[in-house]
Amino acid sequence: MQLTFGQYEFIYNAFSFGVATFFASTLFFWLGLSQVSKKYKTAVIVTGLVTFIAGYHYVRIFGSFSEAYTAVNGVVTATGVAFNVAYRYVDWLLTVPLLLIELILVMGLTRSETVRKSAALGGAAALMIILGYPGEVSGGIDGTRLLWGILSMIPFLYIVFSLFSGLSDSIAKQPEDVRGLVSAARWVVVLSWSFYPIVYFAPFIMSLDGGAATTVIEVGYTVADIVAKAVFGVMIFTIAVRKSQDTAAA
Amino acid sequence: MQLTFGQYEFIYNAFSFGVATFFASTLFFWLGLSQVSKKYKTAVIVTGLVTFIAGYHYVRIFGSFSEAYTAVNGVVTATGVAFNVAYRYVDWLLTVPLLLIELILVMGLTRSETVRKSAALGGAAALMIILGYPGEVSGGIDGTRLLWGILSMIPFLYIVFSLFSGLSDSIAKQPEDVRGLVSAARWVVVLSWSFYPIVYFAPFIMSLDGGAATTVIEVGYTVADIVAKAVFGVMIFTIAVRKSQDTAAA
Repeated sequence: MQLTFGQYEFIYNAFSFGVATFFASTLFFWLGLSQVSKKYKTAVIVTGLVTFIAGYHYVRIFGSFSEAYTAVNGVVTATGVAFNVAYRYVDWLLTVPLLLIELILVMGLTRSETVRKSAALGGAAALMIILGYPGEVSGGIDGTRLLWGILSMIPFLYIVFSLFSGLSDSIAKQPEDVRGLVSAARWVVVLSWSFYPIVYFAPFIMSLDGGAATTVIEVGYTVADIVAKAVFGVMIFTIAVRKSQDTAAA
Repeated sequence: MQLTFGQYEFIYNAFSFGVATFFASTLFFWLGLSQVSKKYKTAVIVTGLVTFIAGYHYVRIFGSFSEAYTAVNGVVTATGVAFNVAYRYVDWLLTVPLLLIELILVMGLTRSETVRKSAALGGAAALMIILGYPGEVSGGIDGTRLLWGILSMIPFLYIVFSLFSGLSDSIAKQPEDVRGLVSAARWVVVLSWSFYPIVYFAPFIMSLDGGAATTVIEVGYTVADIVAKAVFGVMIFTIAVRKSQDTAAA
């Protein structure tokens, strides 16, 4: 696959942007822990864990990309070392279940509801990632990719359905000043996540050449990761702080 | 020994997954310390120590693997630098006794019982690792490996026996809302640990070629380590938080 110098630089800078954003947001969440009451601390700790794990993987992705390509005198050359796409899957396997768990934790449900919903949504999220992986690494734009992609959509749709049916009752019970935010956080999950299957299935729909396709995929995934983890995390943090203030005022 | 590119990538990603999981879980335990009452803080600190030590060793294992093999244009080549299997034993020598100690600490026994059981179980665990080591590094699938493996099983069986007889009384005295979890944590120890002797003795039972055997062993050990340290740690942490809440409520 051939990258132009512009494509190479764009991907390279997007990865570095990811590293900076994820580690900075991790520190923001954890340094802010003292503003959150005991009940919501775990939600904020997990929010920082998600961005910490993502930061680690962006360091690895950045390193793998630097080993896979060299750019000398404006000419980009593939070194033959594989660019390891699997880092994303390893990252998602850990962070995607945790993302759903942080949303459930910040809602402050009962212990049994928290355990039940975390297991159902977290388990479905892990299954979604595991089912997508064989299609991604198969390499071809063929039946194998299509089959695993479709299988992976089953838990995805289950999660979307659960967020909009199962969690609705719980959202209605949230304090008034965070209800809108909790509902918005749910929308951020669904909208940012829907980017991933679009990228996954994109090769079947539009024809992009190697370099352009790689640029769209890598920069696109990076933006989606930042929205789904850091922006979403700021919403979770804000909900936790407001609910802590409500409790203190009451 | 020859690895295919798929095997190489699978091992490589499993090690990176280990690094991310262990450091993330360490931070989770230590950031959560404020949610745990004084009595159970040491249990949670030790829980984080175990995953921290494991994270350090997975960085080393990952580095050693990267030096032992190169993958260029999809072809994996052994560089001749040895892949250091001993990192696992150094890790276990530290973490396995600590794992048992964290389980004993979270039970909140009397001071003398804690010291006695920690010394007996921790000592047996260290002995188990030390006895397994000469068989592992002997290299051959022969009498030497078999002899040390069998010797190592003696402290292993003593630990399993102690967990199910000696600790049963103490489990019966645990508060009701954690009794099931403490008993489950004991099962996680026994089930995840039983994977290690299976891998150790596997070469005597089934014949796998070099690459497949290495993949099964390395990925298998990684999964077993994650269950025995991180998943087990989350259980210990949960027990500590619940017991702290019980005390606060009482």
